[in-house]
Amino acid sequence: MNKIEHIGIAVSTLDTAIPVYEALLNTPCYKTEEVVSENVKTAFFQVGPNKIELLESTDPDGVIAKFIAKKGEGLHHMAFEVTDIYAEMERLTAAGFVLLNEQPKLGADNKLVCFVHPKGTNGVLVELCQERQ
Amino acid sequence: MNKIEHIGIAVSTLDTAIPVYEALLNTPCYKTEEVVSENVKTAFFQVGPNKIELLESTDPDGVIAKFIAKKGEGLHHMAFEVTDIYAEMERLTAAGFVLLNEQPKLGADNKLVCFVHPKGTNGVLVELCQERQ
Repeated sequence: MNKIEHIGIAVSTLDTAIPVYEALLNTPCYKTEEVVSENVKTAFFQVGPNKIELLESTDPDGVIAKFIAKKGEGLHHMAFEVTDIYAEMERLTAAGFVLLNEQPKLGADNKLVCFVHPKGTNGVLVELCQERQ
Repeated sequence: MNKIEHIGIAVSTLDTAIPVYEALLNTPCYKTEEVVSENVKTAFFQVGPNKIELLESTDPDGVIAKFIAKKGEGLHHMAFEVTDIYAEMERLTAAGFVLLNEQPKLGADNKLVCFVHPKGTNGVLVELCQERQ
C-alpha cells in the first residue's frame, strides 16, 4: 500500500456537495465522471498527494443510495494506491481477507480496482486501486 | 489543507483490530497512545504520507462507544494536515462551517486539532491538525 489514494464520500447530490467541498478543501473540483457500471456520478478534489471522491447514486437501488438510506451521507470507503493490484489481491486473500471481486475491475479515474469485504476490516470498505497503463 | 493526515476508524477493541490492520496494510502498528481527555485509546499505522488511526473507547459513554452503538465499527473521521490551524479555522468559519471547538485542543500524536461539525460537511466529521512545535 503506497498511500491513501482517495476517500470516498456518499452524498445525496453532487450539485450541492461540490461547492461545500470546494469551500472546505479550498480547491476546485477538478473532474466529474459517471461510472455507469457502478451507478454513480463522481467528483474529485486533490489534497496534496491524496484525493477526495464524492459519490452520488444515479439509481435509487444503487449501492450509494442504499448506503445513504441506511446510514446517511458520509464516509463510504477508503482507497489505497497499490503498485501491483494482482499481487496485493493474492497477499490479502492468503492473509484471510475476502475480496468482493475476484478480478480487478475498471473503476473511476482510470483505475483498476478491487474491494475488500468490510466484515473482515472492522466495518471499513477498503478499495485497492492501481493506475491503468 | 496539505494532505490527509490520517483516517480515524472506530473499533471495539484494539487488541483484535491491530493485527487485522497490520495484515491489511502490511505494516506494523508503530504507536499506541491513550488520549484521556477524549476517552480513547489509539493505534497508528503509516501508509506512505498518510496514517490510519484506530480508536477504541475507554468509556461506555464516550463518543467512540456511542458511534459504534449507533453505526457499528467503521470509518469515523477524516483528518487533514494544515500548516496554520488558526488561519484555517478562521477561513472555515468565514465560509460558514461550524467548528466543534473554538480553540485548537491537544489531540493524539502531538497535534493541535479542531473538528468541523459534520452537519455542514455532508455527514463527514472533519478534523484539522497541525504538528505541535
